[in-house]
Amino acid sequence: MRFRAIIEYEGTDYFGFQRQIPDQPTVQAALESALQLITGRLVPVTGAGRTDSGVHARGQVVSFDFDWPHSTDALQRAMNANLPADVVVLAASEAAQDFHPRYDARRRCYEYVIDNTHVRSPLRRRQSWHVEQPLDLERMNQAAAQIVGRRDFATFGQPPQGDSTVREVSRADWRREDQRTLVFTIAANAFLYRMVRSLVGTMKLVGDGSWTVEAFRAALDARDRSRAGTTAPPQGLFLVSVDYE
Amino acid sequence: MRFRAIIEYEGTDYFGFQRQIPDQPTVQAALESALQLITGRLVPVTGAGRTDSGVHARGQVVSFDFDWPHSTDALQRAMNANLPADVVVLAASEAAQDFHPRYDARRRCYEYVIDNTHVRSPLRRRQSWHVEQPLDLERMNQAAAQIVGRRDFATFGQPPQGDSTVREVSRADWRREDQRTLVFTIAANAFLYRMVRSLVGTMKLVGDGSWTVEAFRAALDARDRSRAGTTAPPQGLFLVSVDYE
Repeated sequence: MRFRAIIEYEGTDYFGFQRQIPDQPTVQAALESALQLITGRLVPVTGAGRTDSGVHARGQVVSFDFDWPHSTDALQRAMNANLPADVVVLAASEAAQDFHPRYDARRRCYEYVIDNTHVRSPLRRRQSWHVEQPLDLERMNQAAAQIVGRRDFATFGQPPQGDSTVREVSRADWRREDQRTLVFTIAANAFLYRMVRSLVGTMKLVGDGSWTVEAFRAALDARDRSRAGTTAPPQGLFLVSVDYE
Repeated sequence: MRFRAIIEYEGTDYFGFQRQIPDQPTVQAALESALQLITGRLVPVTGAGRTDSGVHARGQVVSFDFDWPHSTDALQRAMNANLPADVVVLAASEAAQDFHPRYDARRRCYEYVIDNTHVRSPLRRRQSWHVEQPLDLERMNQAAAQIVGRRDFATFGQPPQGDSTVREVSRADWRREDQRTLVFTIAANAFLYRMVRSLVGTMKLVGDGSWTVEAFRAALDARDRSRAGTTAPPQGLFLVSVDYE
């Protein structure tokens, strides 16, 4: 039996989603440990997106195979009872035998949160990027509009696999959630490594007046990784959802 | 010179505001360490409220005395550069020589956040109490209405000093912030030890149907600490503001 689960986690204390070097805590290892406690054996877990160290998720999608004689509700409860406080299964269901969370994904959506206020906030520090300089939302949205569509994003990241740096961005916009909170939403068929953080860091330079919108556009068109601006820190980034057919 | 500062902190990693046993981290000790790094000597810090272990603040008020030859803006920046990430000075100003943050306070305001949803949230776990059972906001507000006014709160806490358990509550109400978030706001001249958490834990029993509003009222009227319901956990509680004349 193959299962599909939607996972929320606070990435602060993890070296990203994907297991890499032994003894580095990862979300994947936390899920596999919970499944091992339930089943008594290693159940490999596959994720839709390899979120970086410190990046969060409200809707990571994973799959795993094993025979479970009870309901999926009972599976979810058993997993949540065995997971640490910073990882949870939001939903679990049976999946098709050939379901693959990464290869089958058609669209991923990320959000990036900027806490744009003079003094840093201890209460928000784990889940936002504190930016002290005033940011111009309209300019940042002019930059965001440049990246919508099928484009070569070589400036903003390396491909995790294969050689193509072309991605199809279906949505990219900034909104003001409250007086101090700016939220960037981006959806695409897939993302390059560090792409969202590189885009956000560079759009921030447009927002604070360091770069013009035209300079942002020129950097995009250059298809040259060295032309990107800064990379935004991981703690503001959330994998929000993964869509399938 | 006496200074007054407004402090925000995430209390998760502290044994409350007030210094108690050496080597236990407290917010007071963090502030005194920062001032020691700036001045080279011990500058004692006095706070308006002794928040418990794990309780947060968005508007704790503190005072301290020393000669500072620069602006209060520069003092704020110097302190924030020397404070850990989970404590910050939101504002600093000169105060009257006889200002005392605790004795002069006329009104304190706290908020308590409940995350009322089926599955616990890793992203919200540090700053809310996860309650799985559906809660009836109207019933909780009927209970909250019972505590407004000048009353004896012996059921809901011990006095931090003196013998009187009478307090004057000027506001107590619940609001639904979004589909899953309930926020309790309470303002009073002063609070007993654990009073807000004891009130919230007991009102939660009214909200989930375990207690009637009348049982809540009877517990209040009994003026007997053993008649309180449960005590809500610290991570949902925020000291929001302290008012002076």
